Amino acid sequence: MLYLIGLGLSDEKDVTVRGLEAIKKSERVYLEAYTSILGVGKERLEAFYEKDIIVADRDMVETESDAILERANEVDVSFLVVGDPFGATTHSDLLLRAEALSIPYVVIHNASVMNAVGAVGLALYNYGQTISIPYFNESWRPDSWLDRIRENLSLDLHTLCLLDIKVKEQSIENLARGRKIYEPPRFMSVPTAIEQLLSLLPPSLNGKDTATATASDPDPSMTDDRSPLTPTPTLSPCLDPSQTLCISLSRIGDPSQTFVSGTLEELSHLDEDAFGGPLHSLVIVGKRFHALERDFARRWAVNKESWDRVAREVYGVRD
Amino acid sequence: MLYLIGLGLSDEKDVTVRGLEAIKKSERVYLEAYTSILGVGKERLEAFYEKDIIVADRDMVETESDAILERANEVDVSFLVVGDPFGATTHSDLLLRAEALSIPYVVIHNASVMNAVGAVGLALYNYGQTISIPYFNESWRPDSWLDRIRENLSLDLHTLCLLDIKVKEQSIENLARGRKIYEPPRFMSVPTAIEQLLSLLPPSLNGKDTATATASDPDPSMTDDRSPLTPTPTLSPCLDPSQTLCISLSRIGDPSQTFVSGTLEELSHLDEDAFGGPLHSLVIVGKRFHALERDFARRWAVNKESWDRVAREVYGVRD
Repeated sequence: MLYLIGLGLSDEKDVTVRGLEAIKKSERVYLEAYTSILGVGKERLEAFYEKDIIVADRDMVETESDAILERANEVDVSFLVVGDPFGATTHSDLLLRAEALSIPYVVIHNASVMNAVGAVGLALYNYGQTISIPYFNESWRPDSWLDRIRENLSLDLHTLCLLDIKVKEQSIENLARGRKIYEPPRFMSVPTAIEQLLSLLPPSLNGKDTATATASDPDPSMTDDRSPLTPTPTLSPCLDPSQTLCISLSRIGDPSQTFVSGTLEELSHLDEDAFGGPLHSLVIVGKRFHALERDFARRWAVNKESWDRVAREVYGVRD
Repeated sequence: MLYLIGLGLSDEKDVTVRGLEAIKKSERVYLEAYTSILGVGKERLEAFYEKDIIVADRDMVETESDAILERANEVDVSFLVVGDPFGATTHSDLLLRAEALSIPYVVIHNASVMNAVGAVGLALYNYGQTISIPYFNESWRPDSWLDRIRENLSLDLHTLCLLDIKVKEQSIENLARGRKIYEPPRFMSVPTAIEQLLSLLPPSLNGKDTATATASDPDPSMTDDRSPLTPTPTLSPCLDPSQTLCISLSRIGDPSQTFVSGTLEELSHLDEDAFGGPLHSLVIVGKRFHALERDFARRWAVNKESWDRVAREVYGVRD
């Protein structure tokens, strides 16, 4: 049997009882180590499971899946994934390959940031598509994720932004020379994500120009057929840094988890340390935002007064 | 300490090790029993935890939260929620009340259908807002959820539809007479959800009229600036029952979990039994649909030929 097991978010004790039982009886245990990280290392997991763990990088999963699946129709094999097994990537390839080899499989689910983001207090129903913000470099500045945020905002929906991680990457030189030397892992911080976001906005919105929209501007997206439960907005949050609320989250599910709320502009002025250790994520708040949610997230606000003011003037939140 | 603990999706062993430890040391253990259900009853949980459980209905959580929080700054109290603690409802009220009483709290996350839906093989990134389909009755046929599905489809996004559950509901007569007599619990099935959906469509689309769109109709939503990764569609899935793909899921995370894939029309003709036991959910597939996803979900197709045909002709999926 192949067990595809989610490890949850933080440490060795976030595995489920069902997942732990499967690991304990497995002959081989693999850990997928390229889409996310736990707050603890492989050694802590090995000590807790009393099992050796084979770290599976992207190469191994994509090109050596038959080694992972070897004899899995005779013995139990566990394939561990941080978060939920279907969170960052669906691992459909591995499962279809197992099926082709007549290997039965069981999926053991767990929390991932995709649902644990509920902890910042915004109803999960009001999130649109989740996006990933990739690292920019000199020659590559992909920006389609910004369109996805705008699509969500146009429907008044929140956006969970997952920030890039670079694990076991080679420099262009090492890659070209075929040297298996890897760069240190990098985890994008909230300030980097916001800096990249602001760099893509037109000059009038990225702080390089002083002519910004004011709260008295009419909202072109306002229509009359809104549900009565939706607060009447006075201005649409269009990623104007001073008028767009967001909430950062770091190490969600860990005792050291840290949330920070404020406008994009306020968060852009904070040191990286203010956001807690990696991994960081960022929620861009859409207009389906209610008084209780405002109050819940105000507890982490950089400036409680401006949090309430923007919620009222831009998002139309009423008590 | 107040522990807000997700129980996951299926049975007593889906709790995390961290969650189980918290329950074991708690003086009182509450189970929130109105937004979802596990596949096992309270007795199984009590035997596994070796603890008595107090079932907390909506009334209790909303009006007697101080009883739940009593002395929680001196002893440990666990509040258990099926799925993730922030899945169906954020429980922000309870947490803000705890904070007002200077009671520290810890959230222990777990899987919920909001992320476990990844098991049907569609990338979680390509889901839009999640919706709930409520039971219709003679006098109440709310339909705003249909607009939400259309919003998602307009962005080519999938929709996870959660189906209504009615637990501890009173009949209007019993409510009027103040009699605390409750109706048997009801869990909406996929056929009921699809029947309600079809009843809201215009006659040309709900099967009451034979003039339906054909695959050769031009797609008005087609534009030229699509990302090269998005397949070129030939027809937009506009909830036409014969041209909209969907995937049902029941008892996700349980050994008895059942997935069925096909067009809305195909699923509408199946018996309720075909979908497995409650709880049911339904995914409406949007156009960000790829060949590997088609192959993954084909395994559960009512009719593999029409699954592939609609994927090709309506969704533009290419190999």
